Amino acid sequence: MNGKTHPKKIYLPEDRLPRAWYNIVADMPNKPLPPLHPATKKPLGPEDLAPLFPMELIKQEVTDERYVEIPEPVREIYRIWRPSPLIRAYELEKALDTPAKIYYKYEGVSPSGSHKPNTAVAQAFYNAQEGVKRITTETGAGQWGSALSYATQLFDIELQVFMVKVSYRQKPYRKTMMNIWKGKVVPSPSELTETGRKILAEDPDNPGSLGIAISEAIEMAVKDPHTKYSLGSVLNHVLLHQTVIGLEAKEQMEMADAEPDVVIGCFGGGSNFAGISFPFLKDKLEGKKPDLRVIAVEPDSCPKLTRGQFRYDFGDTIGLTPLIPMFTLGHTFMPPAIHAGGLRYHGAGAIVSQLLKDGFIEASAVPQTESFEAGLLFARTEGIIPAPESMHAVAQTLREARRAKEEGKSRTILFNLSGHGLIDLGAYEQYLQGQIHDYKVTDEDIARNIEVLDQMGFPVPE
Amino acid sequence: MNGKTHPKKIYLPEDRLPRAWYNIVADMPNKPLPPLHPATKKPLGPEDLAPLFPMELIKQEVTDERYVEIPEPVREIYRIWRPSPLIRAYELEKALDTPAKIYYKYEGVSPSGSHKPNTAVAQAFYNAQEGVKRITTETGAGQWGSALSYATQLFDIELQVFMVKVSYRQKPYRKTMMNIWKGKVVPSPSELTETGRKILAEDPDNPGSLGIAISEAIEMAVKDPHTKYSLGSVLNHVLLHQTVIGLEAKEQMEMADAEPDVVIGCFGGGSNFAGISFPFLKDKLEGKKPDLRVIAVEPDSCPKLTRGQFRYDFGDTIGLTPLIPMFTLGHTFMPPAIHAGGLRYHGAGAIVSQLLKDGFIEASAVPQTESFEAGLLFARTEGIIPAPESMHAVAQTLREARRAKEEGKSRTILFNLSGHGLIDLGAYEQYLQGQIHDYKVTDEDIARNIEVLDQMGFPVPE
Repeated sequence: MNGKTHPKKIYLPEDRLPRAWYNIVADMPNKPLPPLHPATKKPLGPEDLAPLFPMELIKQEVTDERYVEIPEPVREIYRIWRPSPLIRAYELEKALDTPAKIYYKYEGVSPSGSHKPNTAVAQAFYNAQEGVKRITTETGAGQWGSALSYATQLFDIELQVFMVKVSYRQKPYRKTMMNIWKGKVVPSPSELTETGRKILAEDPDNPGSLGIAISEAIEMAVKDPHTKYSLGSVLNHVLLHQTVIGLEAKEQMEMADAEPDVVIGCFGGGSNFAGISFPFLKDKLEGKKPDLRVIAVEPDSCPKLTRGQFRYDFGDTIGLTPLIPMFTLGHTFMPPAIHAGGLRYHGAGAIVSQLLKDGFIEASAVPQTESFEAGLLFARTEGIIPAPESMHAVAQTLREARRAKEEGKSRTILFNLSGHGLIDLGAYEQYLQGQIHDYKVTDEDIARNIEVLDQMGFPVPE
Repeated sequence: MNGKTHPKKIYLPEDRLPRAWYNIVADMPNKPLPPLHPATKKPLGPEDLAPLFPMELIKQEVTDERYVEIPEPVREIYRIWRPSPLIRAYELEKALDTPAKIYYKYEGVSPSGSHKPNTAVAQAFYNAQEGVKRITTETGAGQWGSALSYATQLFDIELQVFMVKVSYRQKPYRKTMMNIWKGKVVPSPSELTETGRKILAEDPDNPGSLGIAISEAIEMAVKDPHTKYSLGSVLNHVLLHQTVIGLEAKEQMEMADAEPDVVIGCFGGGSNFAGISFPFLKDKLEGKKPDLRVIAVEPDSCPKLTRGQFRYDFGDTIGLTPLIPMFTLGHTFMPPAIHAGGLRYHGAGAIVSQLLKDGFIEASAVPQTESFEAGLLFARTEGIIPAPESMHAVAQTLREARRAKEEGKSRTILFNLSGHGLIDLGAYEQYLQGQIHDYKVTDEDIARNIEVLDQMGFPVPE
């Protein structure tokens, strides 16, 4: 093994934990377009978001300052698991017999096992500061609900999680994890909201959807002045908080005397991708590192970045949110039931979409079986079982490393291993049993959903 | 929070990973008594163990050299997750409002999530060196089976795991984890052995037991010269390998400028307890640290250390092993079905038993509900969900920290958090639902099982 002189794991000392998040908007030549009110089609003002979010987060949503200070109490909590390790994948490199040098930032060391607590803790803090007593949120597979449960209990905020009913039944461990951290979890549709009651009255066996769960969470938040709502991805302030990942990684790469040629993150709503890549993209935006490649990896069954259109669309499937400028498959697009639940989202956030449009980042799509094959190789070499979402970043890394071998060229790859898969072992079991399939999304299917946006008269930015 | 000047997590650089395991036998004033052949009652020779273990491990079982060098390939693999972090429990201390300083060594960072790979990798290495092509083992809850699966695949050794049938059904995730690492798993009793076939012929619905699984694994190993058997606890060489935990912790405590007054580990067969404590006990055995307290924590429903007798007994429940000198409840003792499966063992290893008899260590027993209460507090403060076994160490730590507060005295506590509980969330769910109970073990019950040993004429050392 080749790991004798350089360490495998690079730890950044706690006193070098970043003091500010990096806001990429400050360095973008074309700023992200503003969200629009769905009725008036006019840009939103802060007051439009005030029923949902505390003012400090609304400010972060629209700021163009380059750095936003991380409050000291948030840094203190980050220290429970951060800085997370940067790891040189010596064992994987050896198995691939590649000249590429592979590094990964490992976010699975957090309490809930993914990068999600980075923003959950920040959001809980700002809510607590403004006297919020209760937060509502939705969760699909449960990663976000468990991260926010962990965070809110630290600030004595009550949390009500609406969990998509079918996931609630399939993933009992996630519900338990939320309960351990005092999160209240109800299967959605529920009897707690008008929306839920109405749906249940018509269809008592409704399995739920992320759209319904969002709807219930927002309804409960809007009705009570002491209750706010919280979102785990897509929005600018969420991406901002996640940049702590890349800021640490940048310092750790320097400690390892290495510089990435390629930075890779899997892509659902964009939060872990933005987290690892934005601090590196800064150099590219400033013209210092023009050859840097930054790759967002999506499942080929939910291909908004590689096959979607850049235009205004709802952020949710029901149509409760503002119109967001994004690469989208249409909010009515129903992605197949792949195991990477966190990547089953029809659109991308405003910042990432603008960066893709302007050619600063690339996108790539990976079939489900390829992602599992990559996850299994990773587990057998590096000893960490990746989450189904994170497998996609591994799969793209394998593609790059194999290409490096074919070309006989070295290259340095950095990817974000956004979470472990210990709560997702049921998915691995299916793969080992040969029960995991790929799905084809037809052009017609995409066109049909995009047409809905035309019919609704949603603006298309040039 | 009080963590501003000192870091919460203390990382030992990889180049300071220990180069040798520590063998406490060298420093014991009274050496552990030898195992006896059950028929002749004569001490065993190396040749008696040769059908089961490679010669290098048999040598380690009986050596009295103070240090045993860790082979370089084993150190290279250790580096994948080791040195494991030493963590200052600032958040727990704050919640307890205690003057005690609490540190824990966290072994849950390993591939299978516990300390078990420390010996699994070493055992796989020595087997591979001697040309072994296949290893058999038994597993109850699955921690050991998954650790050994991870280790054997690294050396291209085939692994056959006999998993107690009732656990096989209750813990499907553990089976999946073993399969991810190429371990073959069969519910025991199985059709693969004569023992299994015989039991199934009489009782097709037999739920299995650890005793039956051991019996099957040993039968398969003995019948094939290229197949050996492997055990995850109790034996001297297993405890030896685990001392890497305490050796690291000793250096890390020095880095933190701290010295423990109390060292705590939970106790099943003794491997994680020995791992954390033996390197610290060395100072006590040498008279340098006479006041050091070392506490082995067992469930009060399997109280061999606090209520058992020191005498020769079988290591397994069926009677296939040599006679081992140990604190025991009798090999026929059936512990209640507590969730800490790894602590449901009737006896203690020879070394630990001698140390307890000679007064160098203490033992303590914790009820199941107290352990869960401690585990939940730990998860809410430190952010790590402990395994049911490890909760027992947490519970004893809470007792010591609360006593420190009552007495108004500071004291430094070090405990081993031997694993995370992410595969055991079902147990937490039961606790949160109020379905976890304590069990009483009566003196009569213990006496009845000890009487069996008298009837069998097993020797009692003075």
